[in-house]
Amino acid sequence: MNIKFIGHILSYLLIMESVFFVPSLTIAFFDQDGTARFILVTMALCLLVGTALNQLTRKYETQRYYAQEGMITVSLSWVILSLFGALPFWLSGQIPSYIDALFETISGFTTTGASILTEVESMSRSLLFWRSFTHWLGGMGILVFMMAVVPLGRDAGYSLHIMRAESPGPSVSKLTPRMGNTAKILYGLYFILTAICFVLYLLGDMPPFEAICHAFGTAGTGGFSVLNNGMMAYSPYIQWVTTIFMALFGVNFSVYFFLAIREYAAALLDEELHLYVGILVTASLLITFNIRPLYSSFFESLRYAAFQVSTIMTTTGYATADFDLWPSFSKTLLVTVMILGASAGSTGGGLKIARVLLLLKTLRRNILQSVRPRSVQAVLINKRPMDEQILDNTNAYLSAYCVIGMICVILVSIDGYSFETNVTAILACFNNIGPGLNLVGPTCNYSFFSPFTKLVLSLAMLLGRLEIFPMLALFNRRAWVRHR
Amino acid sequence: MNIKFIGHILSYLLIMESVFFVPSLTIAFFDQDGTARFILVTMALCLLVGTALNQLTRKYETQRYYAQEGMITVSLSWVILSLFGALPFWLSGQIPSYIDALFETISGFTTTGASILTEVESMSRSLLFWRSFTHWLGGMGILVFMMAVVPLGRDAGYSLHIMRAESPGPSVSKLTPRMGNTAKILYGLYFILTAICFVLYLLGDMPPFEAICHAFGTAGTGGFSVLNNGMMAYSPYIQWVTTIFMALFGVNFSVYFFLAIREYAAALLDEELHLYVGILVTASLLITFNIRPLYSSFFESLRYAAFQVSTIMTTTGYATADFDLWPSFSKTLLVTVMILGASAGSTGGGLKIARVLLLLKTLRRNILQSVRPRSVQAVLINKRPMDEQILDNTNAYLSAYCVIGMICVILVSIDGYSFETNVTAILACFNNIGPGLNLVGPTCNYSFFSPFTKLVLSLAMLLGRLEIFPMLALFNRRAWVRHR
Repeated sequence: MNIKFIGHILSYLLIMESVFFVPSLTIAFFDQDGTARFILVTMALCLLVGTALNQLTRKYETQRYYAQEGMITVSLSWVILSLFGALPFWLSGQIPSYIDALFETISGFTTTGASILTEVESMSRSLLFWRSFTHWLGGMGILVFMMAVVPLGRDAGYSLHIMRAESPGPSVSKLTPRMGNTAKILYGLYFILTAICFVLYLLGDMPPFEAICHAFGTAGTGGFSVLNNGMMAYSPYIQWVTTIFMALFGVNFSVYFFLAIREYAAALLDEELHLYVGILVTASLLITFNIRPLYSSFFESLRYAAFQVSTIMTTTGYATADFDLWPSFSKTLLVTVMILGASAGSTGGGLKIARVLLLLKTLRRNILQSVRPRSVQAVLINKRPMDEQILDNTNAYLSAYCVIGMICVILVSIDGYSFETNVTAILACFNNIGPGLNLVGPTCNYSFFSPFTKLVLSLAMLLGRLEIFPMLALFNRRAWVRHR
Repeated sequence: MNIKFIGHILSYLLIMESVFFVPSLTIAFFDQDGTARFILVTMALCLLVGTALNQLTRKYETQRYYAQEGMITVSLSWVILSLFGALPFWLSGQIPSYIDALFETISGFTTTGASILTEVESMSRSLLFWRSFTHWLGGMGILVFMMAVVPLGRDAGYSLHIMRAESPGPSVSKLTPRMGNTAKILYGLYFILTAICFVLYLLGDMPPFEAICHAFGTAGTGGFSVLNNGMMAYSPYIQWVTTIFMALFGVNFSVYFFLAIREYAAALLDEELHLYVGILVTASLLITFNIRPLYSSFFESLRYAAFQVSTIMTTTGYATADFDLWPSFSKTLLVTVMILGASAGSTGGGLKIARVLLLLKTLRRNILQSVRPRSVQAVLINKRPMDEQILDNTNAYLSAYCVIGMICVILVSIDGYSFETNVTAILACFNNIGPGLNLVGPTCNYSFFSPFTKLVLSLAMLLGRLEIFPMLALFNRRAWVRHR
């Protein structure tokens, strides 16, 4: 275990986190809301611990950095970032319990958007900004961001391991020969799309502060709002913009990369994209017809259906309708797209469409093979045969997903709430969505759970965002033993 | 596709089914309950169609009989057996709708025990006997039974394919060199255990008719009762006998086989057995403590907890308590053991403990491998390395299980009942248990669902009993194409 280099990366991360607080601090000074000193204390703490760690790990070496180091780095980063990120909420007293503050921060960084706040409008703008900003930072990956700005060693080996551990989906394709460049390009595309969303919000008469916070929430597919009513408060225009941009941020960013370098075929013939759009459209239409009697026109019904499918499937978590009151069929479809999730390599969570595609194709092959045991067939994605290792990993991911989901539901059930509440709370946190059904429905919040359950749900959010294995590696004794 | 030989096997099956009706017919004559002519008509129909088919397929050949033929034979057998088995219920008017009668019969043969009857005591004894008898016949496999009595060709090749397709669990080990002998030994053990259970019921003052019907339900881990109150009506002694025998029938029968031939080590050191007993005991104790406030003594609480865990985990479906009223934690544990199920090679359903063991061990290996990609480790069960093919199949089974479960829940949700009802109805049918939670709780029945949902649930029961792939092969175009 290359502890020195891991520590060195973490030290930069902490120093960077203090910089992340600058916009919030500016708002705090501007608004004179009394949170400035708490933000300053947090920044000082980040800088202090960061610099000390940086000095301690000065003699790092970038060699001997393997998959396990990448996983441990990423898991520790997210935990540490959240532990420090929660401080201003707690110190300022705006969230009195530290466990609640931690829940809210993890929910932010993991772009879950589940909240323990019963109402948000009484919170100061500086902290509301920080809360929404965590979505944007977490969306594309914080270490990916760091790699885009801090060049640590010339060798791309370590960054590939980090990128693999932090990026969602079954495999990370190297878009450009150097990982640092890939990170820069991804963040460039992310920044541009967020900016367009922000401008479109402004054009819909959304006040600038709300527009930037909601753009962060949409881009990171997070779901925190700065209004108590969230997206319900806005015009149909804003709701359609949000619907479309949530869907856009749920697309694999490599599609945009290929569009940017004008390889249109590679972008548009992607099978994952087709399945993603297919499910999005089919579920929206089915729900539109199912909820038609509840609304006055087909178009209104379509607007509500499309928004809710887009928000749930991309695991954002905004809501314009209390879908907990919808018919059973619509609710079940929403729970289904909750589990499926967005595309790999997007800011969304869930199982990921790429994995669903691999699982369905593997299943199809297995049916054929159970019928004809001696036939051997490769699974093709985009006409290329997939590596059997990736197929095995995908199946392993599903079983890990099921086992962990089940254990979490058992742990949460100790609190004694309904089956629907427990199951959908875990699904909503594990898939980084936010709202579930029943007591955690779109008009509710997570404040009523016990501290123990809040910790379980926080862990579920981290497990979901980091796709299980890096987090499990953190708890694996063998991962810490010296390598070879 | 060796259609001739498949038809020939099916013809014997139909002829055998007419014989299965003999005990019911005897009761009908004895009771003069007016159902004798309907049973006779059904028997005549089975004989007629069976004999005609037998003549048509006279020129069969036992060669060229592969895995696909085995699957198709088994799937068709179960469908045909149920279609004919439902006739007496429908013809006699005791179940007025044929779809309901079919649901009840499939529920019987698949040892699910879900019922559409709002009360059973008004049904005639002859048909109640038939209803319970289907559990016993379905428990160990009907074609396995046929192979024990009808020697079709000397060659064991075809019977291995049938046994693989019909027996529950990840793999069938050949217990003896000849499959016909294995089938005989299994049925011998099954018969002896059922007889002991019957005698113990008699010793507890259960009337003989009730004792034999309940022994069938316990042995097949089915769950149909002949009383409206089911097992709630009996003494603690009877309830403990049932608890223990349900647990015994959920054990892999190869354990009894090894005990019978005095290979005690092979029997008692089996890892699946340890995990099975471990989960059974742990879940029972956790629930005992959780429901302690609801009952007057620890021992009473233990009795209810142990019974309910045993009935749900072995997928029997008897109930002595309305566990729908238990605390959330207990209900969640019951749903968990619902999914895990009984041992492979037992009469119980669910995922099967052997599969759970394989999934957990594969998961553990995958965590280690994600940390150390270059290390290669075999998964050991009972200290023997498992074939990678079996591990792949187990993972494939889990993904098929998830996909089909999800599709079924969506289809059932069209009826508009609650999330908990829909999810647990599918789990209860797919895992061949019987009762679920909420509207399909242990004191309720399945009569209120629409005919479409009843067909979906019937299909789920068959998919669960035959472990998905044989049923899917039935719908696979390629399986019907001539081999090579």
